[in-house]
Amino acid sequence: MSRTDYPVYLQLRDRLWDWIEDEKLSSQQKLPSERELSERFSTTRVTIRQALSQLEAEGLIFRSNRRGWFVTPERLRYDPSRDIGFTRYVTEQGFRPRTETLFKQLTEAPKWLSEATGLPEGTPVYHIFRRRYVNERGLLVEHNYINPQHCPGLLSESTDLSIWQMFKEKYNRVPDHRDIEIYPLALKGLEADSLGVNQGTAGLYIQRLSHDQEGEFLELDREYWLHDALKISVHVGGRH
Amino acid sequence: MSRTDYPVYLQLRDRLWDWIEDEKLSSQQKLPSERELSERFSTTRVTIRQALSQLEAEGLIFRSNRRGWFVTPERLRYDPSRDIGFTRYVTEQGFRPRTETLFKQLTEAPKWLSEATGLPEGTPVYHIFRRRYVNERGLLVEHNYINPQHCPGLLSESTDLSIWQMFKEKYNRVPDHRDIEIYPLALKGLEADSLGVNQGTAGLYIQRLSHDQEGEFLELDREYWLHDALKISVHVGGRH
Repeated sequence: MSRTDYPVYLQLRDRLWDWIEDEKLSSQQKLPSERELSERFSTTRVTIRQALSQLEAEGLIFRSNRRGWFVTPERLRYDPSRDIGFTRYVTEQGFRPRTETLFKQLTEAPKWLSEATGLPEGTPVYHIFRRRYVNERGLLVEHNYINPQHCPGLLSESTDLSIWQMFKEKYNRVPDHRDIEIYPLALKGLEADSLGVNQGTAGLYIQRLSHDQEGEFLELDREYWLHDALKISVHVGGRH
Repeated sequence: MSRTDYPVYLQLRDRLWDWIEDEKLSSQQKLPSERELSERFSTTRVTIRQALSQLEAEGLIFRSNRRGWFVTPERLRYDPSRDIGFTRYVTEQGFRPRTETLFKQLTEAPKWLSEATGLPEGTPVYHIFRRRYVNERGLLVEHNYINPQHCPGLLSESTDLSIWQMFKEKYNRVPDHRDIEIYPLALKGLEADSLGVNQGTAGLYIQRLSHDQEGEFLELDREYWLHDALKISVHVGGRH
């Protein structure tokens, strides 16, 4: 009946989070100092730090160098079983999306891309690398690999808006069926640099392989997200 | 037309991965030494290390202290829009599942659980903490919080098998509709210890809130996965 098996710092984690919610501390607001918190909850600095570190691990708060602890902005929700475009799901949740093209080029499909897409190795392919923002915070970078057969001249268009919308309006193509894979990884190299985080920072990877309404390869999209920016959210079954 | 914008170590990453596939190096097999690889690919040790580190970040290879680099076992696939039980999707993919109960107790719902489930604060609730294995590698731990009203005596049953199956066979309940949330986090405290990894190691969190066919709260499941163990895989749209 007791909660004796439940470690003290986890009990404190629960009380601390309840308190943050009761105080209605909102996104980006600063928490009291560790000393104040240890007095308020009548516990040691060590236990307070363990509880804060637990909340940090869950992505609920974050530490800013020398400035203390802050409440993390709420994660964006993304439902892969619905899979609407970035611009649309960001807007639907009341946030402001923005996209910035970092480079674009015509290149030749390397072997891994050929295996992923079915394009013969060495086939010309568009490669666009973009950074995407929500409320002016850069949350992800993405590589788009696009079949140029279906959208000649795409590289001369602005790619700072929705590519799906461009497919539809200019080329009369829609990403009809998509295979989506999602897993955590460490951000490295180009992706870490472009997001302004340290090499090896935890991130989330989303890959979307799209074919058009005629079953032809349209686009491979590889997204690299900050680890605390997004949550996958799916409702299954029932009458609700 | 050139690939000049594409960093050298990423070109090497592609060639290295192609080579691993061509050699059919399989799960858990060892790669040649960094010295041998730098000779084979006519490049420096620094670039080879960057390319290996990139493949590690993608979860394709892992480093074992003093023993070198190895190919990561393929990730389990999990489709949240289908959401069948662990035992079943592991078996379907040709692997062997196993579950071990680490503790179980009757406790009282703290505030966060009450808010997540709608149970009044302080209501008795079963709390089960388990570790789950695939081919004898411990890949996740999970906390199950279960409404005891619908399954009296559950704690005296073995909880080393599928709880969903027990619901169905013994209590005539099924997890009818579920709200699933998935996001990356750092593994800490109890969960890191139970998985035998360092504090702060990257992981994946899956939460599943299940109601039964009568719309009543049945179970809240909080899973903590190793970061390289699982991938979310969803097919959307089309006629395929």
